[in-house]
Amino acid sequence: MRVNPDVSAKTHPYISTGLHRHKFGVPIPEALTLYAQAAKQPYLKVAGVSVHIGSQITDVGSFQAALERLADLVWTLRQQGHDIRYIDAGGGLGISYEGAQESFEKQIAAYARAVLGPLRGMKLHLLLEPGRAIVGPAGALLTRVLYRKTNNGKRFLIVDAAMNDLLRPSLYGAYHEIVAVNRESRETEITDVVGPICETGDFFARDRELPLVSEGDLLAILDVGAYGAVLGSNYNTRGRAAEVLVDGARAKVIRRREDITDLLRIER
Amino acid sequence: MRVNPDVSAKTHPYISTGLHRHKFGVPIPEALTLYAQAAKQPYLKVAGVSVHIGSQITDVGSFQAALERLADLVWTLRQQGHDIRYIDAGGGLGISYEGAQESFEKQIAAYARAVLGPLRGMKLHLLLEPGRAIVGPAGALLTRVLYRKTNNGKRFLIVDAAMNDLLRPSLYGAYHEIVAVNRESRETEITDVVGPICETGDFFARDRELPLVSEGDLLAILDVGAYGAVLGSNYNTRGRAAEVLVDGARAKVIRRREDITDLLRIER
Repeated sequence: MRVNPDVSAKTHPYISTGLHRHKFGVPIPEALTLYAQAAKQPYLKVAGVSVHIGSQITDVGSFQAALERLADLVWTLRQQGHDIRYIDAGGGLGISYEGAQESFEKQIAAYARAVLGPLRGMKLHLLLEPGRAIVGPAGALLTRVLYRKTNNGKRFLIVDAAMNDLLRPSLYGAYHEIVAVNRESRETEITDVVGPICETGDFFARDRELPLVSEGDLLAILDVGAYGAVLGSNYNTRGRAAEVLVDGARAKVIRRREDITDLLRIER
Repeated sequence: MRVNPDVSAKTHPYISTGLHRHKFGVPIPEALTLYAQAAKQPYLKVAGVSVHIGSQITDVGSFQAALERLADLVWTLRQQGHDIRYIDAGGGLGISYEGAQESFEKQIAAYARAVLGPLRGMKLHLLLEPGRAIVGPAGALLTRVLYRKTNNGKRFLIVDAAMNDLLRPSLYGAYHEIVAVNRESRETEITDVVGPICETGDFFARDRELPLVSEGDLLAILDVGAYGAVLGSNYNTRGRAAEVLVDGARAKVIRRREDITDLLRIER
């Protein structure tokens, strides 16, 4: 049963989950009643406790606070005769979208201490769901500069990817690092990076310092492996991008590019 | 040529378009140079001027201000020898998502006056792009209540539609009226209406007063004909909903529901 520890963590309102105002989980006092009910069911076997306090959390103190409450709950449930052997600490470990990769291993170690500390000696099988930490940094969105534009001194790079390919900047105000591919320019400029969709929300970066690039150059938008392609749409009748799996020097298309036929085939 | 009149209109930051900080359009002083360049091209024929100041604008004064600047531009261009015969006033006319339909016709009349006033006597062919005003109110999203839930006194209706079906509440903080289908309940409650996706941003209404409904009941989320299905995704491996065209008592499926086969067919 996923419980709601009411732990406040510093994160975007859309990716915080563990507060009473959210739809997720069951408040801990109510959980005790529900475990008692579940234990009476002939086809259910009470085996574990689960928690998920949010996404993109970098302050591991929030995980520790949640796990301490969960450990208390496990003791109470065991006292009431439930055989609790599994604990699912959920996901939520933040990754650094700002590129400070050297501190990530330290953060993983701090996370492990925060999660394991409250569970020491409890003989629990620990489950973790750090999906973003695993796949987030593994993905990059390649996009070509279509056009350079200046409006009253403000610069824009208009690229061929758009919010239908990567919604995170628009939906969550998310930051994604952007690098120039195959171009060594020491000159930089302050520019917006925007897509060609007819929405002001169709942007990847605002007032970002980037190496000076030309029309036709490729950019890579980094850390898009989580909540990237899965949030893709066909907005503006745009086919979704191909996905390519890269392993060292080998590359394989694992999801082909959508074309207009794909978009129309379920219409009648 | 679409010009940028730098007219500020009261609207959501993501749907305002006519400011210098936005990617759209060409500043009016720059437009004069570009028209002169275009007129020299053997394969181009200068014929019109276009403007788009934003979306969901209900203060028609903003349209009037933009059209006054556009009319000035047309006079200047004509003085410079350009044969301007078309003017595209763009879109952006707001619709009432709060259900005050009786004032909409008055608003259309006010919009017509605001747009036509500055153009009187100019012998221009007027083009308009009021897409949302035409199709927005024509669409409704039908969804079934899966589950009623209370967390520490806060109520939730969990429905089978989700943010992958209708992103506007999450993306723009948009309000959509929600009505109960086939249920006459005088009793009401204050509740959130949320989808089953694992995101706090997966919601349709927050702290909304709605008729008391039961699990299994149908709700209709109104005014989803614009920026509804076109922003749909397969997030959480959810197939997109079917679309049904209704004409009086006749109904026809015009886009069938996606199934898991549709989702996997372009994967390799």
